[in-house]
Amino acid sequence: MHPATPTYDDLAAHCTRLHNFQHLASIAWWDQAANMPPKGNEARAAALAELAALMHRLRTDATLAERLARAEQEPLTDHQRANLREIRRDWRLANALPTELVQRRQLATSRCEHAWRSLRPANDWAGFLTHWKPVLAIAREEAALLSQQSGLAPYDCLMDRYEPGMTSATVDRVFGAVRQWLPGLIQRVVERQSGQPVIEARGPFAVEAQRALCQQVVRRLGFDFQAGRLDASTHPFSGGVPEDVRMTTRYRADQFLPALMGTVHETGHGRYEQNRPREWLGQPVSEARSMALHESQSLAFEMQLGGHPGFARALSPLLAEQFENQPAFEPGNLHRLLTRVQRGLIRVDADEVTYPAHVILRYEIERPLIEGLIEAEDVPALWDAKMQELLGLDTRGNFRDGPLQDVHWPEALFGYFPCYSLGAMYAAQWFAAMRRAMPDLDARIEAGDWDPVFDWLRDNIWAQASRWTTDELALRASGEVLNPEHFKAHLETRYLAERG
Amino acid sequence: MHPATPTYDDLAAHCTRLHNFQHLASIAWWDQAANMPPKGNEARAAALAELAALMHRLRTDATLAERLARAEQEPLTDHQRANLREIRRDWRLANALPTELVQRRQLATSRCEHAWRSLRPANDWAGFLTHWKPVLAIAREEAALLSQQSGLAPYDCLMDRYEPGMTSATVDRVFGAVRQWLPGLIQRVVERQSGQPVIEARGPFAVEAQRALCQQVVRRLGFDFQAGRLDASTHPFSGGVPEDVRMTTRYRADQFLPALMGTVHETGHGRYEQNRPREWLGQPVSEARSMALHESQSLAFEMQLGGHPGFARALSPLLAEQFENQPAFEPGNLHRLLTRVQRGLIRVDADEVTYPAHVILRYEIERPLIEGLIEAEDVPALWDAKMQELLGLDTRGNFRDGPLQDVHWPEALFGYFPCYSLGAMYAAQWFAAMRRAMPDLDARIEAGDWDPVFDWLRDNIWAQASRWTTDELALRASGEVLNPEHFKAHLETRYLAERG
Repeated sequence: MHPATPTYDDLAAHCTRLHNFQHLASIAWWDQAANMPPKGNEARAAALAELAALMHRLRTDATLAERLARAEQEPLTDHQRANLREIRRDWRLANALPTELVQRRQLATSRCEHAWRSLRPANDWAGFLTHWKPVLAIAREEAALLSQQSGLAPYDCLMDRYEPGMTSATVDRVFGAVRQWLPGLIQRVVERQSGQPVIEARGPFAVEAQRALCQQVVRRLGFDFQAGRLDASTHPFSGGVPEDVRMTTRYRADQFLPALMGTVHETGHGRYEQNRPREWLGQPVSEARSMALHESQSLAFEMQLGGHPGFARALSPLLAEQFENQPAFEPGNLHRLLTRVQRGLIRVDADEVTYPAHVILRYEIERPLIEGLIEAEDVPALWDAKMQELLGLDTRGNFRDGPLQDVHWPEALFGYFPCYSLGAMYAAQWFAAMRRAMPDLDARIEAGDWDPVFDWLRDNIWAQASRWTTDELALRASGEVLNPEHFKAHLETRYLAERG
Repeated sequence: MHPATPTYDDLAAHCTRLHNFQHLASIAWWDQAANMPPKGNEARAAALAELAALMHRLRTDATLAERLARAEQEPLTDHQRANLREIRRDWRLANALPTELVQRRQLATSRCEHAWRSLRPANDWAGFLTHWKPVLAIAREEAALLSQQSGLAPYDCLMDRYEPGMTSATVDRVFGAVRQWLPGLIQRVVERQSGQPVIEARGPFAVEAQRALCQQVVRRLGFDFQAGRLDASTHPFSGGVPEDVRMTTRYRADQFLPALMGTVHETGHGRYEQNRPREWLGQPVSEARSMALHESQSLAFEMQLGGHPGFARALSPLLAEQFENQPAFEPGNLHRLLTRVQRGLIRVDADEVTYPAHVILRYEIERPLIEGLIEAEDVPALWDAKMQELLGLDTRGNFRDGPLQDVHWPEALFGYFPCYSLGAMYAAQWFAAMRRAMPDLDARIEAGDWDPVFDWLRDNIWAQASRWTTDELALRASGEVLNPEHFKAHLETRYLAERG
């Protein structure tokens, strides 16, 4: 029997209500990206703003502070206590900033993002600065305010919204180590691969066949199509609700790998969402743990599994079925295509070896930006220097493919970038733990049996949701907190030791 | 300048808020029908129920009575006054029934509708009765309560929810007249058509080609695809919001006419919605006038225009383009296919000549049912007798294709059926008015110029929305209130006088 917990129960009902409204927001967002015709935009924006205002009022209800304090005194199960911890976190985030600042931020980021859409193709850094400087000023104001409340460093406050508990001290340590060995490793991999011939796939690849292929692969990866969909949108994402996950990808007829591997990536997010604990749905404790943990799932699918020789082996016959067969589809060649490393200017096009360079560069710029140590005007020169240092690329004057390439900065999403690489590191750590527990793991993946991977992820990550802090979750799952050595070892094994 | 109307403005803001929430409900409903995978059902139901509860609380806010009374004393423009009339109507409907009764109704109809889904194919009338009798009892309770409040007759109260101002006295008069001439007219039409050979279209018709055809026709009918979509669902409907109308149809490979003409029907609804007055969107005065008026638009498209020789002439080349050409696609033959009259058991499959028989039969049964003059057990015998009388068909023992065929009665949607035939009559009345105003109308439709039809409907119906009562709208549009003689004249002209 549960003890009597009237205030806790009341807070849980409050969460369920928010969850129901969030369901409608999620579906309307997905619809906006996947279906909505252009003239629907204004009405949709008004409807979503109305709902956001309602949810904000609910989350900042004046009685919540007292109810939270009261519930914390009630006799609770461990699970309920973990839920209450997450309810308090949500309450803290919702109440952290004055409404006036939130509205000002919304206005400034909307304007800047809108301007960015045309300034990026125009390579207009000076024009961008006029819109971005107010955004940066507001982000600093936010960070300062949050820092006063929490005692955390300003940048850490921003990062904490996406990655609870993560500090710049940890990121400095982790990225600092990667920075030492990454340029050398990239160099060795690129040299090694230059001696390995690879046959390009020759298109066109009919979009209908690509769609069918993606559906097959998503099914093969265990996604439940009774509880979700795969559609197309300009910017691929994974949304919807756990009972009805909406993934999107985008197709282009001259290549099939971007749509396919984008889909594999989203399927990692999708399975995490589909397998959050059913009995706690609607409560914060059932939410995905963090953004780095979410990325660790998409990258477990796209990179750890997608770059495994067993993936190419399973994919090969599906390609021959959907398209006319060609030499590029031979499993060994396909694997080489899927693990090709190339230095490039664009983060979202990067492979798993060069990707951390893009993230480290952004972290090393946005952190001092928030701390007021550098100004917006300093960004291009720093960008150039770091691209040279990390990837050996010259980007001078090319703002379009430099600091203007991401939507994050115009949107004031400072503190998000580290999650991508932390996710890649966690993914390597999970696979290292799996291999220790299952010495035949690679043989099974190679033989097409991927259930051991899915079962391990389900038990250790998906079903745990927000039951534990991230550190405790990692400790329980893998015996240690975040350890970037696994990522390094993974890259060395795959790209320098594996048979070519 | 507008006079100062603080309370009115405040009520208008309240309406805009409801409208924004309704937007999200409409899109979620459409998504449920067109996209949602089965496991999403429970969560969606919870989310929509949460939103419905919120909207009900807003619509029954205790302060509204006083605010309405205050606003009615303020100096208002004619348009504002019409809006206030509609706001009061919405308030009256929302507050008419105690919450307890609404919940009881919801429970009983859900159960009955769920049981009906399997009892109909099983032809199980006795089983249906056990679920339907509680639904009927609640509907009578509702009608009695509404009748006490309004002084209207019980059945009229139910009808008024869909067709404001319509009374059973009017329906009796109108349907009573139709009843006199309809069986004889059907007989003459069927005899006449038996002498006119018609070539059936030979399938299969690829669903992709049908989809492309429907898109072409919808575009040809003036629907704005920048502000709406056409998709597929099990039960075709028209939903969404005026800025983003979502129409659905259903495809089957052996026939193309049902999907196409269903789409033409929904396009009539869709264009009404797309052309409601932009400057009043969000306010009740911008809503479609009534259900009969809505049906008058779908039937203006599907029947008045779709059964016109000019429609077959325009359609013929599109068919030859999408499918392989065949003799059935010749314009004259196509027109005969589109205007074929056949007595049948199923309302939704009926042509425009026999359709009123199905509606009159239901009206003559559901009205005395609500009034307590007959009981649920009496329905099958009455159904048989009236089918015999109106259409000469024997339905004894065939409940599946008899009183079990519609979802309306299990759902307690008593008072809705008359709207279908009133809509057909209004549609005939609109076309009669157009012909008086434009003597060359038929020549222009025949030549493929349908803009005069759309322009007339836009100016006289769509743009008027709920500015006037239905009677006044009809009077302004056509010089008279509902006059069923136009419908009779239309059927006689098209089916007995027109060249075969």
